[in-house]
Amino acid sequence: MKDGENLEKLLGASREKIDAIDGRIMELLAERASVVAEVAEVKKANNLPVYHPAREEDLITSRRKLAKELNLSPDMAEEIFRTVLRNSRIKQTGTMAGKAVNPSAKILVVGGAGAMGRLLVRWFTQAGYEVRVLEREDWPRAASLCDKIDLAILSVPIQATAQAAQMLSAHLPKDAILADITSVKKEPVRAMLKAHAGPVLGLHPMFGPTTESFDKQIVVVTEGRESEKCEWVVRQLAAWGAVTVKSTPEEHDEMMDVVQALRHFATFCFGRFLCDQKVNLARTLEFSSPIYRLELGMVGRLFAQDPELYADIIFSTPERRELLKGFVKNLSENVKLLDDSDVEGFLKEFRRVSQWFGPFGEQAIRESTYLIEKMVERF
Amino acid sequence: MKDGENLEKLLGASREKIDAIDGRIMELLAERASVVAEVAEVKKANNLPVYHPAREEDLITSRRKLAKELNLSPDMAEEIFRTVLRNSRIKQTGTMAGKAVNPSAKILVVGGAGAMGRLLVRWFTQAGYEVRVLEREDWPRAASLCDKIDLAILSVPIQATAQAAQMLSAHLPKDAILADITSVKKEPVRAMLKAHAGPVLGLHPMFGPTTESFDKQIVVVTEGRESEKCEWVVRQLAAWGAVTVKSTPEEHDEMMDVVQALRHFATFCFGRFLCDQKVNLARTLEFSSPIYRLELGMVGRLFAQDPELYADIIFSTPERRELLKGFVKNLSENVKLLDDSDVEGFLKEFRRVSQWFGPFGEQAIRESTYLIEKMVERF
Repeated sequence: MKDGENLEKLLGASREKIDAIDGRIMELLAERASVVAEVAEVKKANNLPVYHPAREEDLITSRRKLAKELNLSPDMAEEIFRTVLRNSRIKQTGTMAGKAVNPSAKILVVGGAGAMGRLLVRWFTQAGYEVRVLEREDWPRAASLCDKIDLAILSVPIQATAQAAQMLSAHLPKDAILADITSVKKEPVRAMLKAHAGPVLGLHPMFGPTTESFDKQIVVVTEGRESEKCEWVVRQLAAWGAVTVKSTPEEHDEMMDVVQALRHFATFCFGRFLCDQKVNLARTLEFSSPIYRLELGMVGRLFAQDPELYADIIFSTPERRELLKGFVKNLSENVKLLDDSDVEGFLKEFRRVSQWFGPFGEQAIRESTYLIEKMVERF
Repeated sequence: MKDGENLEKLLGASREKIDAIDGRIMELLAERASVVAEVAEVKKANNLPVYHPAREEDLITSRRKLAKELNLSPDMAEEIFRTVLRNSRIKQTGTMAGKAVNPSAKILVVGGAGAMGRLLVRWFTQAGYEVRVLEREDWPRAASLCDKIDLAILSVPIQATAQAAQMLSAHLPKDAILADITSVKKEPVRAMLKAHAGPVLGLHPMFGPTTESFDKQIVVVTEGRESEKCEWVVRQLAAWGAVTVKSTPEEHDEMMDVVQALRHFATFCFGRFLCDQKVNLARTLEFSSPIYRLELGMVGRLFAQDPELYADIIFSTPERRELLKGFVKNLSENVKLLDDSDVEGFLKEFRRVSQWFGPFGEQAIRESTYLIEKMVERF
């Protein structure tokens, strides 16, 4: 055993070695970034996609292999290079953002001063499009704003969409695309089809206005009319890195009943109960496994956001409200299990649902285990 | 614009450059790992803790600074070095696992062939303790197995704990510690105190048997009797990297009503409804934002695990079952909001709960945003 001073010296020397190694790693990362920037320029000049899944998987596989040879953890290597790859993808997407798929197109964003509207304006402008904005006070100038436009995007609340489409239609060139970005699609697409005789496109970007990059973000694309004429808009979204999912307005809304409304409603109910029970939040966190913290984080996240947004989603259609009532009713059936301490009944139900989830369970374990590790690593 | 062949050549050359850079990064990581291994040996020899939060934060801050200087993303640098740090911590913890806090102690694990029991046996054995196992068929040999032991850990189902404590008590040395690891504490600790006159300790490791490392994992420690004599067990858990949280059996159980039972019950109800509604799971995933995928992953995760485990947690006490019924009742109150399309009422409730969550909301946004990024990066 060494005395304290020597020990400090010894550890200090090791720390200096580690700092030096890390410094060299960082320099190599900077060198790597400059090579990637060259690649991005070549890709841009030749209209090649940013995201090359096969190359990325090859790269990860070879780094894992190398890690084993060097007696390092392959999982660590994978994590590090996934981080590096994502960052280069975002940088490349940034380079690509300057690339317009249909450069001569003129675009009008109705509600372009709202949060999502500003995002659209920024992205289309960066890509070199001529972008105009129509706000509530601009309706008297609607005719000149609509002059020779190729695409009008409605970025207004759900309940204002039909009226905006109607008011715009008088000024819209016949061949212009009329599109919207609300979180329901059946009614808005119907209203746009009624208001405008030309191409109609229903979009639902599955992300909020704080999103910095389109990278791997999902945009649902529902056809309204003359979809071939709308194709360039979809290609533009893909060029920015978004994943576009084609659907019908009907299927979209049905999916969102679950993906958005049910999930948000259940989360709302859970948070409300915690509040009504006056649960000691801070103390539960001290006792929490990463998974509880993760789940409570999802609840806290909802309540830290705009309530109007959630009201919009939850109350948007009668079908949706019926579904949510069905959820409460279904849930009440579990009271009997509790009343009777019916463990057997619970196990039977559990196994039935388990079977229904099928192979998704394995995927869920894999994905959530990874995230829990990330959580432990970071917080 | 270049022709296809030249383009391929150009990209190929860049890829080779990138591969070479990555190879050098990996070699530096291996070099780093060997320095860290030296540090671990020094720490082990001098009884220093593995986890040194202040040094880690300094390191992260300096790497972020360097990233800025090199025109790299500081967030990327932080992510990479958090990954590296976590991996070295786990490796160091592995080195430390061979270190016994109370080397001469003899340990008996009752139920040592179960999943959690095997984990305990492995860890204590690795640390150099003499470890014995008592399984159901070993009761006739209980006297010899208990001979001169210092710690008996009950790793049996909740409902079997009281009986196991009783059966063991006849053979337990007076000064031996009697401990358990069930997920409730009031009844088991009471039963152990009744059965044994010596030191008693109630433990609840907040992780499952598949956990590879104790690193940052929470273990709740509830005092039974003569806690100063139990101290070495708590120090051993900490030496393995666990975070120990002190509590009373009463507080522990109350916390678990929420942290485990309520959360699992709500997740169970949600999954059951998806199943009863015959939701098209695969298709909803194609439409999903990362947050939905994350939340659905939590549901899928539950149903991919042992139903008995969840039944044990949900049905364990009458207070718990009452709380869960209260949850269903509270939830039913939201039906009125839906029936009346009462958006105002919803907003009011939302804001009330939001206020109650307070600053946790900010934290939740920060943490979940980080995880969502990780999710997008990986899957």
